[in-house]
Amino acid sequence: MNTVELIKKKRDGKSFSSDEIKFLISQFTRKKIPDYQFSALLMSILLKGMNSKETSELTKAMLHSGKIINLSTLKGSKVDKHSTGGVGDKTSLIIAPIVATTGIFVPMISGRGLGHTGGTLDKLESIPGFKTNMSLSKAIFVLKKCGAVLIGQTKEIAPADKMIYALRDVTATVESIPLITASIMSKKLAEGIDGLVLDIKTGSGAFMKKYEDSIELSNSLIKTAKSFNKKVIAFITDMNQPLGNYVGNWLEVIESVHVLKGTLKNDLYDLSTKLAGAMIYLGKKAKSLQDGEKIAKKKIETGEAYKKFLEIVQLQGGKVNYILNPDKYPKSKFNGKVRTLKNGYIKEMDTYQIGMSSLELGAGRRTKDDKIDHNAGIIFHKKTGDYLTKNEVICELYSDSKSKLKSAEQMILQSINFSNSQPRKQRLIKKIR
Amino acid sequence: MNTVELIKKKRDGKSFSSDEIKFLISQFTRKKIPDYQFSALLMSILLKGMNSKETSELTKAMLHSGKIINLSTLKGSKVDKHSTGGVGDKTSLIIAPIVATTGIFVPMISGRGLGHTGGTLDKLESIPGFKTNMSLSKAIFVLKKCGAVLIGQTKEIAPADKMIYALRDVTATVESIPLITASIMSKKLAEGIDGLVLDIKTGSGAFMKKYEDSIELSNSLIKTAKSFNKKVIAFITDMNQPLGNYVGNWLEVIESVHVLKGTLKNDLYDLSTKLAGAMIYLGKKAKSLQDGEKIAKKKIETGEAYKKFLEIVQLQGGKVNYILNPDKYPKSKFNGKVRTLKNGYIKEMDTYQIGMSSLELGAGRRTKDDKIDHNAGIIFHKKTGDYLTKNEVICELYSDSKSKLKSAEQMILQSINFSNSQPRKQRLIKKIR
Repeated sequence: MNTVELIKKKRDGKSFSSDEIKFLISQFTRKKIPDYQFSALLMSILLKGMNSKETSELTKAMLHSGKIINLSTLKGSKVDKHSTGGVGDKTSLIIAPIVATTGIFVPMISGRGLGHTGGTLDKLESIPGFKTNMSLSKAIFVLKKCGAVLIGQTKEIAPADKMIYALRDVTATVESIPLITASIMSKKLAEGIDGLVLDIKTGSGAFMKKYEDSIELSNSLIKTAKSFNKKVIAFITDMNQPLGNYVGNWLEVIESVHVLKGTLKNDLYDLSTKLAGAMIYLGKKAKSLQDGEKIAKKKIETGEAYKKFLEIVQLQGGKVNYILNPDKYPKSKFNGKVRTLKNGYIKEMDTYQIGMSSLELGAGRRTKDDKIDHNAGIIFHKKTGDYLTKNEVICELYSDSKSKLKSAEQMILQSINFSNSQPRKQRLIKKIR
Repeated sequence: MNTVELIKKKRDGKSFSSDEIKFLISQFTRKKIPDYQFSALLMSILLKGMNSKETSELTKAMLHSGKIINLSTLKGSKVDKHSTGGVGDKTSLIIAPIVATTGIFVPMISGRGLGHTGGTLDKLESIPGFKTNMSLSKAIFVLKKCGAVLIGQTKEIAPADKMIYALRDVTATVESIPLITASIMSKKLAEGIDGLVLDIKTGSGAFMKKYEDSIELSNSLIKTAKSFNKKVIAFITDMNQPLGNYVGNWLEVIESVHVLKGTLKNDLYDLSTKLAGAMIYLGKKAKSLQDGEKIAKKKIETGEAYKKFLEIVQLQGGKVNYILNPDKYPKSKFNGKVRTLKNGYIKEMDTYQIGMSSLELGAGRRTKDDKIDHNAGIIFHKKTGDYLTKNEVICELYSDSKSKLKSAEQMILQSINFSNSQPRKQRLIKKIR
């Protein structure tokens, strides 16, 4: 097979055969196809698309570039959740312990934050001592012991995805439904799971800003999961404002603990228990989604979920006393309050800009090598639909840099639109499929 | 400016500003933009296009990556011809001497053959001693001395084009009207010319197989030339069969000599004198295209054109005695005849395949490093519209490889379609604009 001819084929809008996709992925992974050819191919895939058969074959080829974790020694269902990412999206920290209490195994491989979104790994690593980087055998040990493990992509897991993603990131070829699908699914399938719950974000803080795009992505993910005989449920959820009230790594751990303890019942609580409920349903520990959600809420009320969270933290090397006594955690050098300039309802929040403000404060990364300030972030006192009088506090900011505090304040003020009349409430769950 | 954002811009179908194009070309030429980003950009340009302003700016940026030859010391018009390439297209060898006899300067920068087409440089280099690779000052000396010079792209001429073309060739991004336009025009404008005659081939042996595509390319080339205040005339000409009867490097020199001597008046003669006539008209030595053509024919009849050819050969180091006595030229080790299998008219010739047969015989290159067999090639006895009885000779083949002779024979037989009725004659000149 000839690489140039294959690029030409996709460029001209034709479909690849299974063998052609296998050839392209295996040759690229072995560095037999240079980056400059593969990036032209990626651009032609982005612009010309792939049908569902091609997407499934691409996923398969990327999956088989590495290992599939063998979880056959674990008795019980293995179910995971994947979110396409957003601002303040910390549901993994809440869901994994809830579901693990029901006897379902949650082998969760997560990513790091880049750009305006945070990453589960960064949030967990804000807990002193917490290790997300461990050998597969150690991860399976933790999973067996407590029912959940939260780690990063190891070198055995879909190495083709790692190589392709690095290239997509610098060639403007990220925003492609088939490429996103294969990237997500190759990693999730490598976890050795039976079922998957998808949380596809839509809105100003999501990667898929338009609702139709999130529907298209969910179609592609569902079709691909089914082509591998996996049970799947997809939620399309709102990302037109941060999820919960805390944005930033350690801040999000604190908010998760509040939800797990049952002391906070906000949008984060609602979404986490719904997603956990769907996982419990897929893992056959509930009769329906509603039943699953009820069980999830119960696990919070009984204290089991919080206890499980502490167990996971301990098994992954985290210092539990910081969770038990968050006051002992080091404080940001600077903090400030953002106040309204006039009376009014919060009409809209440009959640991408809010994510970028959090990054500005030190909570995120502009490039892969940037260091994260675990304390930095934002606590919102008010969100969309809330009324504020002039000079009232919208949010608090935390940072180790005084100048960044100023610039982030400006960014946040610019990202929020006010109105005199109460805006229509956005539904948190837009669709379940 | 951020390269990824610029790729995204073109990918999303937006237009570049002049500064953005300058940035992209200058950074790529200085190796500040890596190949893998530039190839993604090239693919997005191929698939999303460029408007005529962008194409002109791209040409300008590529032109100014190098030098524009200063021909101000030469008194008289400077006019060149460019052909998009085809099989048996040797008009440059005939046109340059004809036009040079009229007092117009012809500073001709040509290319090498790749794939199914031959290249003017390879044809010229089949003349023992002929040098196409010389310093710019030497080239200007030759041009001043005899009115024409035929050389290859020097390192001073549009280096950006050389780098971009090398990348396009291996990333399936050759077939893009704006990229082809900028590649052709940046080199031609660097020659310091006042006017340009374009020979845009259409048909089975052309790069633009479809007539509409050749019209689109001619539009783009004409607009771009005019944006630089250059006089331009474009011919759309037939490439549904080889031009002339000889295909292969030394063979094409021989056929050119026959035309220059006035002993051969075939389609090659017709096209060469028409294109030369247009150049003479652009160079203000004729009142009209028809007048120019008449002058060109006269220059052949008087023997001036042939004399000028010998002068050019000598000044560029070629051994004139091989032109005067072609029998002294070394012969191919093997030759053979291709004969018809049944009676009939030649209806169609797949000219791409005929070009590939010539390459198979040794006359062309599959990759840039392949060596050329100067003797190898094909002499056609019959072309489209001719009647042949069974077993009559269609063409003769020359090669240093016996097995290649066999395979080329098969390829040629497969590339020719016969019919019982006489086919409609294709017009050689489809359009003049």
